Amino acid sequence: MDISNKLANRVTSLKASAIREIFKMVGKSDVISFAGGIPSPELFPAKEFGEITKKIMEEGGAKGLVYGITEGYAPLIEIVEERNKKIGVGKEFDQTIITTGAQQAIDLVGKALLNEGDGVIVEAPSFIGSLNSFRSYNAKLYDVEVEEDGINTDKVEELLKENRNIKFIYTIPTFQNPTGITLSIEKRKKLLEIAKKYDCLILEDNPYGELRFKGEDVATIKSFDDEGRVIYVGSFSKTLAPGIRVGFLTCHKDIMDRVVVVKQVNDVHTTLMMQMMVCEFIKQYDFDAHIKKASKVCGEKCALMIECAKKYFPDCIKVTNPDGGIFLWCEMPKGIDTGVIFEKCVEKKVAFVPGRTCMADIDAPSNCFRLNYTTVSNEKIEEGMKILGDVLKEYV
Amino acid sequence: MDISNKLANRVTSLKASAIREIFKMVGKSDVISFAGGIPSPELFPAKEFGEITKKIMEEGGAKGLVYGITEGYAPLIEIVEERNKKIGVGKEFDQTIITTGAQQAIDLVGKALLNEGDGVIVEAPSFIGSLNSFRSYNAKLYDVEVEEDGINTDKVEELLKENRNIKFIYTIPTFQNPTGITLSIEKRKKLLEIAKKYDCLILEDNPYGELRFKGEDVATIKSFDDEGRVIYVGSFSKTLAPGIRVGFLTCHKDIMDRVVVVKQVNDVHTTLMMQMMVCEFIKQYDFDAHIKKASKVCGEKCALMIECAKKYFPDCIKVTNPDGGIFLWCEMPKGIDTGVIFEKCVEKKVAFVPGRTCMADIDAPSNCFRLNYTTVSNEKIEEGMKILGDVLKEYV
Repeated sequence: MDISNKLANRVTSLKASAIREIFKMVGKSDVISFAGGIPSPELFPAKEFGEITKKIMEEGGAKGLVYGITEGYAPLIEIVEERNKKIGVGKEFDQTIITTGAQQAIDLVGKALLNEGDGVIVEAPSFIGSLNSFRSYNAKLYDVEVEEDGINTDKVEELLKENRNIKFIYTIPTFQNPTGITLSIEKRKKLLEIAKKYDCLILEDNPYGELRFKGEDVATIKSFDDEGRVIYVGSFSKTLAPGIRVGFLTCHKDIMDRVVVVKQVNDVHTTLMMQMMVCEFIKQYDFDAHIKKASKVCGEKCALMIECAKKYFPDCIKVTNPDGGIFLWCEMPKGIDTGVIFEKCVEKKVAFVPGRTCMADIDAPSNCFRLNYTTVSNEKIEEGMKILGDVLKEYV
Repeated sequence: MDISNKLANRVTSLKASAIREIFKMVGKSDVISFAGGIPSPELFPAKEFGEITKKIMEEGGAKGLVYGITEGYAPLIEIVEERNKKIGVGKEFDQTIITTGAQQAIDLVGKALLNEGDGVIVEAPSFIGSLNSFRSYNAKLYDVEVEEDGINTDKVEELLKENRNIKFIYTIPTFQNPTGITLSIEKRKKLLEIAKKYDCLILEDNPYGELRFKGEDVATIKSFDDEGRVIYVGSFSKTLAPGIRVGFLTCHKDIMDRVVVVKQVNDVHTTLMMQMMVCEFIKQYDFDAHIKKASKVCGEKCALMIECAKKYFPDCIKVTNPDGGIFLWCEMPKGIDTGVIFEKCVEKKVAFVPGRTCMADIDAPSNCFRLNYTTVSNEKIEEGMKILGDVLKEYV
């Protein structure tokens, strides 16, 4: 039986996330993996989660096990809205929904907004999970390079001038995935101004923003939004734990109205137990202190990895210097394909994310790669970076 | 700012699930709701879940909190595959994935298979969540009436003969939602034969199949599938609890290959803690005894509600007599619109699901309605059916 003629066009050419594939490949082996995308697992509040959940089940019984409403568990929405307020997110025209991770939030926005052939401006490089989601609605991706202070806004304007099919600009403005770079306040304002001028939306994805370990906070793009042009996505994946799959989405009620219907047919609602657990954790524990502690660890590990890069990498490799988050972006001399180096590295028991997987065109070779510093121990960072440095030296 | 020109065509005319809206309306009030769609909540293993989860978190720590693979938690997949085998599900060409409820399984299939304008044959009546999912991909719904022994297979063949755009037949063959009717073994074989003849797929949705309280098991359609034509969906929502959002999908590996990519961009993976919890529950407790007990309660409540219908409903109302599951379907004389009666009922503090919400054309009046007998106490069944009977009498 031929299955190929049964598939929808939107998915036939879609490729599995290379990062997820790398994850499967190195997950069970003795490879030192810098390919991860989560904060230090030893900081996840496993014990607290266990106790909270037991209590919820004992005291609430079936309350946490029946169907919930699609918008989310009301007490958790309240907490999210309160926290959002502190960073200027959530205007009088906005609503908030709890999602099954930030990934679902991105995907719901894609489904609610993107017709086939609609354009999305994305950062080059960007987060593969979002790029793939947009691709899965047959959107056209327009990529714009990320500079030291974030996306090149002049290029964004050029693209918007030339292409009237662009629905929104997708940006991770703070401690960007994969570069760790933060979009400057000037460029944030500029981006919103351009979006207004060409009547397009902005999708502001901010899963890492709370993990700052140096420098001053930069206002969210959403905080300047006075008309519902910015769709804001946040997550508990990086501040609590990724496996619980709890994120959120705040946007104009007219968009939310469609997002809710799309979520309804997608998974009805986000697991009630997980929503209640997050809610109770924040009520019973000092969440901000927890985040502060996690950020401090991120900072220490980041500093260590940068130090190792200086020590072990060839001098010609440029490495970013983020103020927060969990990623470093490394740029090798032009002409080198880190996809090739990746295979060699895995042989030597060390892994990173090849740059091409983070690009709109995943088939073009890339001279860059992403490193995560939070999921492995300090000893393994030192060990892995030394191995990695040795391999890199063979290629420059 | 005008949002309407920003929305994707696929969602502009999509309506929120009326059932979810009813749920919100009656959820917090003193209405006796027969509009639910879950087994008796007092049977949900809340205490056991709490203990299991505490143990998982204490012993496994971060293991249950990191990212999991998209396909699902391997030990749970193993359990599902083992259970599937007993009902003929899972051939050598098949693979199984854990989904965020059966709703997500349906939605992933829709996204992976349906181009705009593709057709889906659906039962009339059918499950609104699935209908809405297909609508959200701009599919064309072709509805075929459910007879006493299930969908009219002659009509299915006629439609397939006339319409070459039909991708799959969507059926809930056992204790169907909303009718409670079971597709006969003859019609199951016939359906697969027709699907082969016209080269279309079958999506077999079986969330209620394990909740049998009388009669003999009927083989799954999937058990006759020798080439990967049947996509099978199951769930723990009705056997454990719906709020945990754990379901599964078993289908040909070539379809699965696309489904996995679609799930990856949708929510990365189903909450790991919930997958582990379900897995441990089945390992540590007697799951089959639990299902048997739940089915028995379903049967008792079903009998009580049918008895009440005989006692309180006008004689002209036809009520189905299911062998399992959680729903009764009631048919009033032609010309009556149960949408109108619904509003009157809510005033009188009793709720059901109006028939039109279960139809491909939700705008056409329906003389039918759905009753759930499992979520309210026996006393409330008696009380609510009496009120309902009184209202119905005003309309016949």
